[in-house]
Amino acid sequence: MNAGTLPSRGIVLFAHGARDARWAEPFERLAQKLRALAGPDTPVSLAFLELMTPDLPTAVAAQVAAGCASITVVPVFFGQGGHVRRDLPLAIDACRTAHPGVDIRAAVPVGEDDAVLDALAAYCLRQLI
Amino acid sequence: MNAGTLPSRGIVLFAHGARDARWAEPFERLAQKLRALAGPDTPVSLAFLELMTPDLPTAVAAQVAAGCASITVVPVFFGQGGHVRRDLPLAIDACRTAHPGVDIRAAVPVGEDDAVLDALAAYCLRQLI
Repeated sequence: MNAGTLPSRGIVLFAHGARDARWAEPFERLAQKLRALAGPDTPVSLAFLELMTPDLPTAVAAQVAAGCASITVVPVFFGQGGHVRRDLPLAIDACRTAHPGVDIRAAVPVGEDDAVLDALAAYCLRQLI
Repeated sequence: MNAGTLPSRGIVLFAHGARDARWAEPFERLAQKLRALAGPDTPVSLAFLELMTPDLPTAVAAQVAAGCASITVVPVFFGQGGHVRRDLPLAIDACRTAHPGVDIRAAVPVGEDDAVLDALAAYCLRQLI
């Protein structure tokens, strides 16, 4: 946090969730990397659509309680199916209704980013037998 | 292909699949990027666990028919849940049984790669309000 001098900006990484707890490990590593990049004034949280906690409203409420005046929700999904096109907007709307004074936005999913796709392609090439 | 002088190496990008056809777009872009990197002697295919086609055995059989002697299957998944830990090994085993003369391997999922996570973290940071 920023000692109360400025309202904080928060980032919530929104992922699908799974039954196996080990599934979340890459998302936890991503959150750690992002915390290192973003610095102490930018809280970074994970939130899950299903099967894991917290859900998006809970993660957003915690960032609001911690003083965030704007929150960016980044969908950590490759493709845009029903979860991103339908479930996420509904959850975002619920968060906005619950916190009318907070600027809450959903970013474009990570799978749309050219640099992310470049990193994926480079990784795939390195796996060639 | 390589004019028959050497057996080809193929890459199959293995993804989950979804009901919405638009979901596959980032995977198609990834395949295009990978083809540009890998060159014409390395066929690159998509395969899906469910809801989309082809499935993994079909994609592998097509690469074998096209002359691939080794095939690397890259799971385009962030986390390792049941799909990667249980469903994928079963599908790989079925492919090996069907094509005993072909070297078929599964790579570590993309979400385990540090450079991929760095690219994801950089993207997330750029989304800050």
